[in-house]
Amino acid sequence: MKILIVFAHPEPRSFGRALLDRSVTTLTSCGHEVVVSDLYAMGFNPVATGEDFTQRRFPDALQYDREQKQASQQHTFVPEIQTELDKLQACDLLILQFPLWWFSVPAILKGWIDRVFVNGTVYGAGGKRFDQGGLKGRKAMLAFTTGCFPEMMEPDGLLGQRDVILWHLHHGTFGYSGLQVLEPFVGWSIQYTDDDQRRAYLDAYEARLRTIEQENTLPTHTLAEFGPDWRLKPDVAPRTAGHRRSIRQG
Amino acid sequence: MKILIVFAHPEPRSFGRALLDRSVTTLTSCGHEVVVSDLYAMGFNPVATGEDFTQRRFPDALQYDREQKQASQQHTFVPEIQTELDKLQACDLLILQFPLWWFSVPAILKGWIDRVFVNGTVYGAGGKRFDQGGLKGRKAMLAFTTGCFPEMMEPDGLLGQRDVILWHLHHGTFGYSGLQVLEPFVGWSIQYTDDDQRRAYLDAYEARLRTIEQENTLPTHTLAEFGPDWRLKPDVAPRTAGHRRSIRQG
Repeated sequence: MKILIVFAHPEPRSFGRALLDRSVTTLTSCGHEVVVSDLYAMGFNPVATGEDFTQRRFPDALQYDREQKQASQQHTFVPEIQTELDKLQACDLLILQFPLWWFSVPAILKGWIDRVFVNGTVYGAGGKRFDQGGLKGRKAMLAFTTGCFPEMMEPDGLLGQRDVILWHLHHGTFGYSGLQVLEPFVGWSIQYTDDDQRRAYLDAYEARLRTIEQENTLPTHTLAEFGPDWRLKPDVAPRTAGHRRSIRQG
Repeated sequence: MKILIVFAHPEPRSFGRALLDRSVTTLTSCGHEVVVSDLYAMGFNPVATGEDFTQRRFPDALQYDREQKQASQQHTFVPEIQTELDKLQACDLLILQFPLWWFSVPAILKGWIDRVFVNGTVYGAGGKRFDQGGLKGRKAMLAFTTGCFPEMMEPDGLLGQRDVILWHLHHGTFGYSGLQVLEPFVGWSIQYTDDDQRRAYLDAYEARLRTIEQENTLPTHTLAEFGPDWRLKPDVAPRTAGHRRSIRQG
């Protein structure tokens, strides 16, 4: 497989960096082709602006997603974006690796998504989304470290259930773009773990990655399971953390 | 009330900007004191780094949240952060206003959260979180525009239920910090609406804000409802979108 790892951590001597290094070594030794976008090292700019396009369709007032659509057709993204978009389109598996900050990705990685998951290529352009998304046929995975304990992300845990916490990424970003989602890899409560536990996490990540190509993806719904009212058809049972049966009138 | 509006939109001629202007006019005319952080206009830097502190407790390797804790005690944040933190602590109501990008806030606003919702002041420091959070006694609200239609965020809608989509912000960011959460204000599918509909949204936002002080907040759980295992106590029924009863062994 071709694997793109997008890495967002401000500290090169972090445990997160050790996880990244182990993943690159492991995946390469398995014969995969690995590309890393190390956002902090690249000084990646996460702020979407009108400067992201070498030409503007609507120069008077920025409509960011419409400019993305135009740039997808005309190849008028600035090089910083086009380079990342090329990596994304070339990959079979996308791994986002980061410390979980405020139940989500660090801003530098959110900005990579805002600027690189572009309208017209990754989604849009006549119904490209979910199983018809622009990245269909590819897989994606989150790999993150936390400050919290795993019990806190159980269904009745303090922080709420894991799949609800990650919904905006798993369903809203990966799923929406057509990526099939693998179970996340989580290094729990890293600042309270000792060296032995950290070595165990590195080994567990390595073991996981050695057979990543054979893993099943998480359940989702196809576009065809939704009606013209954008809601699950009456005979479809919800099978994700974010879908429930509406109680309808009449 | 003292109201802090944090605004993230790249285009000063946007409908989002019109909503902001209407909110400032309305709230001011009601006698509230309004402060706006217009992140794009400020050129706010969303990328958390070791440069965020004028002194470092651990200069060898950055542990961002531990440096935040130290800086909370020693007042050693760089002025850009301290200024925003002062505004946050001074407010009674926080409004985040933005276009919904990838089921979340734009990167520039995520970075405002990463850098300003600091360990030691907003949370942490001996159990400050949720109803004991550093921002307790204050309220918060999301005000956002979407590209999608409202049916898509119904419980059985294509994008999933609204409170699951927003969980990482409502529960994970506001709730965690002690903020009580108001219903969001949503301008649906703005790029497909005409001028009449946009005027109706501006009027609806104004009407909402005129009585915002009397509104009830969304249901949540108190820390006391969780046991020492960080899970809802057996007699507590889950009452949020992100908590369910675990099926336990034995």
